[in-house]
Amino acid sequence: MKKYTELYNYYKELIITRQLKSGEKLPSVRNAAELHGISKTTVQNAYFDLQADGYIISSPKSGYYVTDINISEKEKTEQSGEEEKIVYNFRSGEADEESFDLLLWRRYIKSAFRQKERLLSYGDVQGEYDLREALSDYIREKRNVISSPDRIVVGAGVQPLLSILCALIKDKKTVSFPGKSFSQGIALFSDYGFDVHIKDKNADIVYVCPSHMTSYGDVMPIKRRIELIAHSKSINSIIIEDDFDSDFAYSKKPTPSLFALSGGGNVVYMGSFSNVLIPGIRLSFMVLTNELAELFKKNKYKFAQTASKTEQIALCNYIRDGHIMSQTRKLRRHYTAKTKLLLNELKYEIETAEAVISDNSVVVKLKAPFNKSTDVFRKNGTDVYIEDYDGEEIKLVLSPSSIPTDEIHNAVLKLKECIM
Amino acid sequence: MKKYTELYNYYKELIITRQLKSGEKLPSVRNAAELHGISKTTVQNAYFDLQADGYIISSPKSGYYVTDINISEKEKTEQSGEEEKIVYNFRSGEADEESFDLLLWRRYIKSAFRQKERLLSYGDVQGEYDLREALSDYIREKRNVISSPDRIVVGAGVQPLLSILCALIKDKKTVSFPGKSFSQGIALFSDYGFDVHIKDKNADIVYVCPSHMTSYGDVMPIKRRIELIAHSKSINSIIIEDDFDSDFAYSKKPTPSLFALSGGGNVVYMGSFSNVLIPGIRLSFMVLTNELAELFKKNKYKFAQTASKTEQIALCNYIRDGHIMSQTRKLRRHYTAKTKLLLNELKYEIETAEAVISDNSVVVKLKAPFNKSTDVFRKNGTDVYIEDYDGEEIKLVLSPSSIPTDEIHNAVLKLKECIM
Repeated sequence: MKKYTELYNYYKELIITRQLKSGEKLPSVRNAAELHGISKTTVQNAYFDLQADGYIISSPKSGYYVTDINISEKEKTEQSGEEEKIVYNFRSGEADEESFDLLLWRRYIKSAFRQKERLLSYGDVQGEYDLREALSDYIREKRNVISSPDRIVVGAGVQPLLSILCALIKDKKTVSFPGKSFSQGIALFSDYGFDVHIKDKNADIVYVCPSHMTSYGDVMPIKRRIELIAHSKSINSIIIEDDFDSDFAYSKKPTPSLFALSGGGNVVYMGSFSNVLIPGIRLSFMVLTNELAELFKKNKYKFAQTASKTEQIALCNYIRDGHIMSQTRKLRRHYTAKTKLLLNELKYEIETAEAVISDNSVVVKLKAPFNKSTDVFRKNGTDVYIEDYDGEEIKLVLSPSSIPTDEIHNAVLKLKECIM
Repeated sequence: MKKYTELYNYYKELIITRQLKSGEKLPSVRNAAELHGISKTTVQNAYFDLQADGYIISSPKSGYYVTDINISEKEKTEQSGEEEKIVYNFRSGEADEESFDLLLWRRYIKSAFRQKERLLSYGDVQGEYDLREALSDYIREKRNVISSPDRIVVGAGVQPLLSILCALIKDKKTVSFPGKSFSQGIALFSDYGFDVHIKDKNADIVYVCPSHMTSYGDVMPIKRRIELIAHSKSINSIIIEDDFDSDFAYSKKPTPSLFALSGGGNVVYMGSFSNVLIPGIRLSFMVLTNELAELFKKNKYKFAQTASKTEQIALCNYIRDGHIMSQTRKLRRHYTAKTKLLLNELKYEIETAEAVISDNSVVVKLKAPFNKSTDVFRKNGTDVYIEDYDGEEIKLVLSPSSIPTDEIHNAVLKLKECIM
């Protein structure tokens, strides 16, 4: 196993550094085995993976050649209209390498492949039953959202779930969003023919994100939650509670979900795993009200499941084994530490900065003698969210999420360059 | 005191209405106290009384669980959602074990995990660029569909892709489907506010499935294809060509795609891998017209990618290494052999049957002295598609797709039991 990895890395390195160039031939399996003093099987496995990863290509009866994939990839990113190369992205919700145990997840994926007969079939439109069962336990424990698996619908992200919801509630007319920045949701509802309002508590459907009300994660106070529920019940509207980021609202006391507070009567609860796991895994779910769950059942033929079945099976066992809980705790610690580090670095390097932590971001006020535009930063390889600029002072919201711990110092120096 | 009563009634209600089911866990005392914003003592009192009244039971050091006080055995089996057990499914497009090399696919998934930095990021809304490149090569080779990767959009199934399409062409008013059996597509377009017609060549959008026009896979003749394109160009409509099953239209000469015949001017081409690979892998794509591709680019912010990134990376390399082509060939041979076997078994076992092969199904006419209903079959553990019943003769379309080769004989015997 070790020899295999060595051989794989050896050739990968040669190809990446262009010591082996596009179109050049690799030694035959037999020759390579002799040269490196290893078995032919080991060489074959390493070649197979090099091929699978796009570094080499096999030509029948002729041998293995270096592809031109590397080159075209690189040229592509140069041409793809990405003008400036962003090295430090302070506005990203993406993950850094330290934040997620990819090897552990890979084990769950591997074990999902053992359930061969399940992978061969289409599976449940609503999502795999055992996953919905695990989700039901998980959200009861974590958010006091009490729902049987029958009311849970799984999908590949919030978008396809909202699509289903739009189809189920099309007798309603108006929908309210907390702000214009919810552009995907707004577009979807408007394409389905709904009238979109902003912050209209009298709308037929009220979309809220109570754990993440602003770009730096303000949480809706409990008093407002209770008022919202009471009002919604009185006018018979539906609340869509997008519980995005509730896992990371760590600096405050956990606030009860609207779903729990309302007893689930008129609240649809939505949750996602993209930010607890990694963005590349598209798995979300929603908990329907009893009426909507009935309606879904009647209209099931209309819909198709979008989430990967392998990933559904993997997630189910990952949750059952308690890894979601420990991953959430790990992420919280990790983000807390990184945010504190960012705060300290900012205060030390930029003495004039007024900086405070707000959730997993740092909010900075600075004297800044330039226009309100992210271009200045982007040109220097950083991306930031500018909350406000009054002509003299600029207010930035900086998230260290995608920046590895040992890069934060350098990232702050880059920021300093742009500001000074 | 009031809070205690509220909490007691809250959980009692949840248990009685089965939202909390037998065996499910209640939140811990501490969690419940936090969630409801009350003291631990209040929660303890409420839990104590719920226990005294038989609704919950406490398990030392583990927590509180709902009892099975009022759930009968019957309800339990109902919850598991199984009516009749279908052993032989003749109407399924699902795969059998022999049809797909799952171990090979698993290796590609494993190798996708090596691209850690790609998995950590959100990726392209349109689909991973290298996958779109591989798809572009593949459909050029296979269906003469000539498109740059810029016009290809990847998604987790045809449904989310049609959703995007609906949003892009919402200025159009009418859509035509080839028949009412396209229920998912019809529902989606109608939910987006389109007027749905059946077989209306004058509609603004014409959805066709030229490689699979009937339940047993008739192919649209080339003369009709050319007429359709000419008419569509003259009235400036859009054709959606769902190329479902073109891979398996093996008994006929391959017919050019509408996209190829039209030069791509007004045709959106859709393809899927669920039936070449396995249904559990949700990967589809569409090729937009130039105008729609431009529109997509402008509206990109509206959409989210639904397909699993791991599976996108794996599929890209799987296609590049030529496995899709060989998998398609393998499946064709496999299905041809199974269909012939089914035909022979039917003719041998049921002498009165008139049976012919139509694509990868067998169409059987039989004297049948029962009502047109699949119940008779389902009760006996088989599922079939009944195309027609005139009171004397029944016409069945049987697909051996999901039945392993060495089970076909037994499956036919089961069918015989139902018919004789």
